[in-house]
Amino acid sequence: MLIQLGEQESLKLLEEMKIGRMGCCLNDAPYVIPIHYFFDGKHIYVHSLPGRKIEMLRANPNVCLQVDEIKDEYNWRSVIVFGRYEELTAVAEHDTALAMLFRHMPHLTPVEAGMNRQSVQSIVFRIKPDQVTGVCEQWSE
Amino acid sequence: MLIQLGEQESLKLLEEMKIGRMGCCLNDAPYVIPIHYFFDGKHIYVHSLPGRKIEMLRANPNVCLQVDEIKDEYNWRSVIVFGRYEELTAVAEHDTALAMLFRHMPHLTPVEAGMNRQSVQSIVFRIKPDQVTGVCEQWSE
Repeated sequence: MLIQLGEQESLKLLEEMKIGRMGCCLNDAPYVIPIHYFFDGKHIYVHSLPGRKIEMLRANPNVCLQVDEIKDEYNWRSVIVFGRYEELTAVAEHDTALAMLFRHMPHLTPVEAGMNRQSVQSIVFRIKPDQVTGVCEQWSE
Repeated sequence: MLIQLGEQESLKLLEEMKIGRMGCCLNDAPYVIPIHYFFDGKHIYVHSLPGRKIEMLRANPNVCLQVDEIKDEYNWRSVIVFGRYEELTAVAEHDTALAMLFRHMPHLTPVEAGMNRQSVQSIVFRIKPDQVTGVCEQWSE
């Protein structure tokens, strides 16, 4: 049975999960990348290396983040967040957020895996959710 | 160790997997949705109900599809495909593709779960990959 999730349930899923797929776009070209994130209940925090997605997000800050938990094909939840990119450029803000991220996430995605072996500029940004919607599928036997 | 995948390896992952996250955009607003797909080695086929993503794709056919296989945080592969939306509007083409999709995919995503309980217009489209890139992370003990 397909059920819309309320805002609170959607935010709860966002808090529980750590991996999402983030979409951005520039000049009518969409781009989707897997990201590790941490949601503190208010903002979604992300660490990144410089690159294509950061260049796109600086030019167009509109972001869509999709997060799901798939138990099996009949039992899953999915949330979609629309928000805006906010880069944390102040050193103190950047460092505080990065320390929080390191406490919460292992290095899974390409950028984070690369980060541990390279000495490059570290970027931290956050997304403030403007709109959150969710849906779940639950079948009983 | 982070390794770029060659085109053949990337296409192979695309053939092996069934779920991806598709990004589209309109008026600088990105949208990401989980989809079920079937890749026959040439085109990526998708079934959908009418709705937001179809309206967006008809207006802007640029598509980005991200597909991954995550074994654990140190062992995963991810592929990103850029291509264009092609709706199969001819009845024979639509029906042939839909029959092929039903053979390959269970109903997992919101649209497909809904499809089985509603009598609504069925849309089949395909994406021709213009560019495929992949990356994998492999750590040995």
